Order: sequence, then structure tokens, then C-alpha cells
Amino acid sequence: MSTDGAAKKHKPVSTQAEEGVRWKKRKAELKEKNKQWKKAKVLKQLEKKKQEEATGNAVTEENQSKKGRAYTVSVALPGSVLDNAQSPELRTYLAGQIARACVVFCVDEIVVFDEQGENVKSVEGEFKGVGKKGQACIQLARILQYVECPQYLRKWFFPMHKDLQYAGLLNPLDSPHHMRIDEESEYREGIVLNKPPKQGKGSFVNCGMRKDVRIDKQLQAGLRVTVQLNKTQNQDCRLYKGVAVAPHVPRTEGGLYWGYTVRLASCLSSVFTESPYKDGYDLTVGTSEKGSSLDNAAVTPFKHLLVVFGGLHGLEASVDADQNLEVTDPSVLFDLYLNTCPAQGSRTIRTEEAILISMAGLRPKITAAFSDAATGSLQN
Amino acid sequence: MSTDGAAKKHKPVSTQAEEGVRWKKRKAELKEKNKQWKKAKVLKQLEKKKQEEATGNAVTEENQSKKGRAYTVSVALPGSVLDNAQSPELRTYLAGQIARACVVFCVDEIVVFDEQGENVKSVEGEFKGVGKKGQACIQLARILQYVECPQYLRKWFFPMHKDLQYAGLLNPLDSPHHMRIDEESEYREGIVLNKPPKQGKGSFVNCGMRKDVRIDKQLQAGLRVTVQLNKTQNQDCRLYKGVAVAPHVPRTEGGLYWGYTVRLASCLSSVFTESPYKDGYDLTVGTSEKGSSLDNAAVTPFKHLLVVFGGLHGLEASVDADQNLEVTDPSVLFDLYLNTCPAQGSRTIRTEEAILISMAGLRPKITAAFSDAATGSLQN
Ligand SMILES: C[S@@+](CC[C@H](N)C(=O)[O-])C[C@H]1O[C@@H](n2cnc3c(N)ncnc32)[C@H](O)[C@@H]1O
Ligand SMILES: C[S@@+](CC[C@H](N)C(=O)[O-])C[C@H]1O[C@@H](n2cnc3c(N)ncnc32)[C@H](O)[C@@H]1O
Repeated sequence: MSTDGAAKKHKPVSTQAEEGVRWKKRKAELKEKNKQWKKAKVLKQLEKKKQEEATGNAVTEENQSKKGRAYTVSVALPGSVLDNAQSPELRTYLAGQIARACVVFCVDEIVVFDEQGENVKSVEGEFKGVGKKGQACIQLARILQYVECPQYLRKWFFPMHKDLQYAGLLNPLDSPHHMRIDEESEYREGIVLNKPPKQGKGSFVNCGMRKDVRIDKQLQAGLRVTVQLNKTQNQDCRLYKGVAVAPHVPRTEGGLYWGYTVRLASCLSSVFTESPYKDGYDLTVGTSEKGSSLDNAAVTPFKHLLVVFGGLHGLEASVDADQNLEVTDPSVLFDLYLNTCPAQGSRTIRTEEAILISMAGLRPKITAAFSDAATGSLQN
Repeated sequence: MSTDGAAKKHKPVSTQAEEGVRWKKRKAELKEKNKQWKKAKVLKQLEKKKQEEATGNAVTEENQSKKGRAYTVSVALPGSVLDNAQSPELRTYLAGQIARACVVFCVDEIVVFDEQGENVKSVEGEFKGVGKKGQACIQLARILQYVECPQYLRKWFFPMHKDLQYAGLLNPLDSPHHMRIDEESEYREGIVLNKPPKQGKGSFVNCGMRKDVRIDKQLQAGLRVTVQLNKTQNQDCRLYKGVAVAPHVPRTEGGLYWGYTVRLASCLSSVFTESPYKDGYDLTVGTSEKGSSLDNAAVTPFKHLLVVFGGLHGLEASVDADQNLEVTDPSVLFDLYLNTCPAQGSRTIRTEEAILISMAGLRPKITAAFSDAATGSLQN
């Protein structure tokens, strides 16, 4: 677990091997959490209201003092959705649809959780190519990472891989951090080059521009790094100059959407318990046609929002598959459990559709939550 | 042009051959319409407000007197969106995405318009299979019709066709009129059988049940017909009994979503001028990232709503391609011209995504328009 600032942009999908070791401890923790979830829901909501009233002015100031966005939005879904596709090509395409849906709504983190009881295995292990059923979590995570990576960095971070066999079919994300070679921008994503920096000078970074960038510090070659370019550059120099910044800086200071991180969770409960944000998610939304109508729901200001989607058989199946959860009704896990498409004309909405629909429904409510806060009239 | 009630469910896509004949007349009409669009926009909006205030109570009564839905929703988009797909399989899949997006939001009519100047040709002509570029309008219309048709009727209405080569990849619509064999329902779609009815008795209809249905009238064999089944059936009889009703009855009287009709338009302006509804569309919405924010827009009660989407190059390209339109700015064609996804995180939103996003954004506003009317507090 790391703090927001240190959240690594390109966390390799297989680094959660230590998972099993922490098992016993986590199990106890979870039991406790289950109790909390069951009992403390009402209390939590009350408390939150109070807190918001108290911190309302602080939030206001924070929002007004910079053009940046202080809050984050995370989306979680089961990797099993890929198994709902009819061909390897469509499996890839579906992953791309999910990536695009998240990017359109400026999602900062995508959590892929396992609901098929493959538990630790699907998070580690060897990968057998996107064509095979199973291995869905790892495949989805890999494709999401691939398509999020700026084109000019892909050759470094994504050597040929079977999961990426049909990557040519993916629609581009066209997000602000996917820059063309001559595009001007205060921030750029880059890779630290394997080129020894001179004594007392910073590393060389390839940011997909016509010249390399020399940053302020020495970093390990091969790291992905967010670079803030100096306002003025000496055009005659063989290098650009810039400084390495935390990956959240383009969002929190520049107000830019800067892509998403990808996290794997071995079960639904780990989505909550392994949050990269120090104090976890402070507003959690579950989605289901059995939820209460979005139209009557209000979103209160938050720091870290989590919106969770189910797979083919809904969040009930995700809860059932999770041995750590003692509840059977998914709604108790969330602050809000919402039907985001009342009066739907199809018996079922597919997860990739539900992401677009739900985020489109939540968007104005999120906007309102923060603009209400800014004008001092907190609603709930 | 037919009235709402007589709108044929399964209008073959090639029956608009008389198009050219009406050309001169339409051109004059259009010139007039262009003027109106340019000048009368403000007037129209004012008038509408007045009208709504006057008819507010009438609408209320109509809504309250039955559980049915009185209004319709139409979606229009250029067939050219198919050319944005990378393979014949994905072309088909994309058409299916559009169908599902419309069904989820209970869209009653999908209008596919030509923006590539193929004009009459793309609406008639021979079909060369879904793999080829071009012929996009006719292919999209055909796939939309195919997937809307209840499974048990497809073998009659959709004999093998190259455009349907990859139809197996289409996700099912799962709409209420797609009934399983033993499902009970007041209404069913059927086909009039080629089986001579007895003197004085009605035709036999296959409604996808274990027995055929005898309806109240004699209709031409091969017609698609909406059947209202009698409340009580004699279980010993070899037939079920029912009456033929207009296709809008399940919606207007039963409050059910009953699929969509498909209409081809040879250009953007024909989308407006060839409405199947007697008085045309009374609320028209154009969609564009250059529109004004959905968040500040209000939807007023309407009879027939039309929501129009552009293709790869937006509605500007559709306007440009339309020789009948003298305007260059698409916004003047519509009552509302809306950005339905303010602060989007991708430079462009694809049309199939924009349908889900826009309809999800409009849905609560439509609901509000009618419930406000019902409670007598008309907002605008
Ligand atoms: C195929 S649906 C699951 C439906 C499943 N039959 C069930 O019993 O819940 C996949 C996911 O899409 C989302 N979803 C579908 N319809 C929704 C709705 N009306 N409102 C909110 N989310 C929905 C939920 O996250 C759901 O778990
Ligand atoms: C690929 S976009 C067209 C974008 C094109 N670059 C333009 O200049 O308009 C295809 C269609 O999606 C819809 N669309 C895209 N973004 C939208 C937004 N923010 N609000 C409403 N509709 C949008 C519009 O109907 C648009 O014509």
C-alpha cells in the first residue's frame, strides 16, 4: 500500500506475490471489517455528513486555491467480463471498450478483481494468450495497462506478448497524456534512459519528443516517470530540461486528466482493503439494477470515490465467490447502491455498457457535489 | 409518410425508391425549411413554452389516465459510423452496440442517414456483404432490423444474407418483445401464416408459442403483426386466440418497450422532413462536444423527441454533405444542441459511446419533464 502521491503509474501486474503471506492477518482483519460493514453503515453516513459540514470550508479553499482536481475516481470490475466475449478479437475489443469508458469519465484507477475463485493464481502465474478462457483478470489488466501507456513508450514497457496479439484492434484512448511528437505540454510521461548521466546532473528521459529531456534527479533506468518541462527552453540546446514529479501532479496542480493506474485484487473485498490511498475510499458506490434509483441519490463531496461493477451474474456472484465476506447482500458493502438506469429497455445491461451509463449518470452529481461545496451550500 | 399508429414495424429497407421523384418538390420545401430554421428558432422556443403552459393540464390527464407511454424517442445517426470499424466482424459488432444502446434507453425509432453523398444509391441497390466499405447505411439498417426481430421470426424475415454473415457475434437485445416460447405476455410479435383461414374467421399467426394464434381479421400472409392475446384461453383448444393491434399499442396502452423501427434517410435533412409522425418531431436535440452543457439544459414535455448524432467528423460533416441544407452550423437545426459529456477525458467520444452517454444524461431530464407535468409544476 502506498500513498496517493507515490502511487506507481506502471505497477507490473505480477508484483503482488507476497499476497499469500499476509493471508492470515488479512483474514482476521476482514472478519472485523465485515462486522463494521454490517453495523456501522448508518453511523458512518451520519458521521460523514457531520464531517462534511465541518470541513466544508476547508474543501472550498482547497478547490479554489488551484485549478487542479483534488479528488480521485476509481472503478472496479471483475476480470471475468472478458469471458463473456465470443472470440479472442472481441475479448481484446471489450477490454478496449472498458478502457475508453473509464478515460472518457476521467477515471484515475481501474481495479480488476477476481470473482472466479482463481484467487492468487490468476494474479500471478504464466500467461497463455488472450485467446484462452480463464486468465481473464491478468489479461484485462494487461490490455488496460497497454492501451493507457502513451504510444511512444509502448515498445519499452510492452514487449511482444500473446495477450496483446490483437492490440491493433483497440481504439485509441486519445487522452491528454497521449501526446504527439510536436505537441506542447507542461507535463509528459517518459522513460528513464539507460544512458549514464554526467556527474551531478540528472538522468536522461525519453518523453516522445524530438530531443531527450534532462531531469533534476538521477533515477533508475527503465522507470516510467512524469516530467514537468521547464517553462522556457533553450532551443539551441541538444536537450530539453524538466523535473520529475509525482504522477498525480498533472491532475492535482494542472487540472489535467492523466490516465489511470491498474490494480489487481484477488477478490471483491481486496478492492476495498488494498486501496492505494492512505485512508481508503471515502465514498463507495455499488451498481445494480436492484439498487435504488440514481435519480433520488445525492453525491456528497469526497476524496476518493470507488464505483464497483459486477460481471455476468452481478455483484451477488462476486460476493458469493469471496470467502472473506460473510454477507450475501452486496448492498451493505457500499455507501450507495444504485440502479443507474431505471426503466431499462433490455433485461440486462452489460458491464461495459453499465460503466458508460453509470458514470454518465454520476458525472453531474459529482460536479454538483463540488460546486455546491465551493459556493458553501453543502447538499446531501 | 405514415402516422404513428400505422408505422410499419418491418419496413423493407429498399422501399424508398420513389425518393427521386419527389425531389424537386422537396428541394423547394427544404429551402423554405432552411429559412424557418434560421429565423424562427427563437420564436419557436417561445411559442413552445407558451403552448406547454397552456397544454400542461391536458398532458397531465393523458399521462395519468393510462399506464402507457404517450411519447416516442427517435435516434438518428449516419451509417458511415460502420466505416470506422476495422474488420467485418467489428463492423457487425458495432451495429449491435448501437442497437443495444438504443434498446437500453427504450428508443422507438432509429434513423440511419447518409452523409457520404451516396444519396439514393446507398438506400437502394444491391448489397455486397458486410465486409466491404461503403454500403454502410444499408448494412447498418439491415443489422439493426435483424437484431430487433424476435428470434423466432428471423428465419422468415431474414433469409441468409451476406450483411448478416457475422450476426452470430451480435449480443442479444433482451428486450420485452423478445419472448421465450413459454413466456406469458399480453402482447406478442408474430407472422401471418400462409395457411388459408376458414370462412369468416381470422388469419393464423405464428407468435413463437407452442400453438399458433388465430386473430380477429384476415391479413396477408407474411406480414409481421403485433398480437394482443385474449386474457383467457381455452387450454384444450388447438389454437390461442388474439387480436391484431397497431405496433404502438404495447407502448401506449401496456407501457411496455416494444423495440424500434428502422428508417433510412438519404441525407440529414430527410431525417427531419420524412418523420413517420404526422406533425414531425416536436423536440429535436443535436449532440456535439461543441454544444452547450447538458447540465444547464432542461427538457420540456414532448410528443416525439429526436436525438441526432454525428459520425467520425461530427454533425458538421453531415451538414456539409447535405446539398439541401444552406446552413453550415449544425446547431441551428435543433431545439437543443448539447454537449452531453462536459470535461471529457478523451479528445473524441465515438458515436456508439455517445449514444449511451447522451441517453443516460437525457433520461432523468425526460423523466423529470413528464413527472413535473404530471404534478402540474411545468419547468423549462
Ligand atoms: C450483466 S449485469 C448483471 C446482471 C445480473 N443479472 C444481476 O442479477 O445483477 C453486469 C453489471 O452491470 C451493472 N448494471 C447492469 N444493470 C444496471 C443498472 N440498471 N444499474 C446499475 N448497474 C447496472 C452492474 O454492475 C451489474 O453487476
Ligand atoms: C467522433 S464524434 C465527432 C467528433 C468530431 N471531431 C467533431 O468535430 O465534432 C462523433 C459524435 O459523437 C457525439 N459526441 C461526441 N462527443 C460528444 C459530446 N461531448 N457531447 C455530445 N455528443 C458528443 C456527437 O454526436 C458526434 O458527432
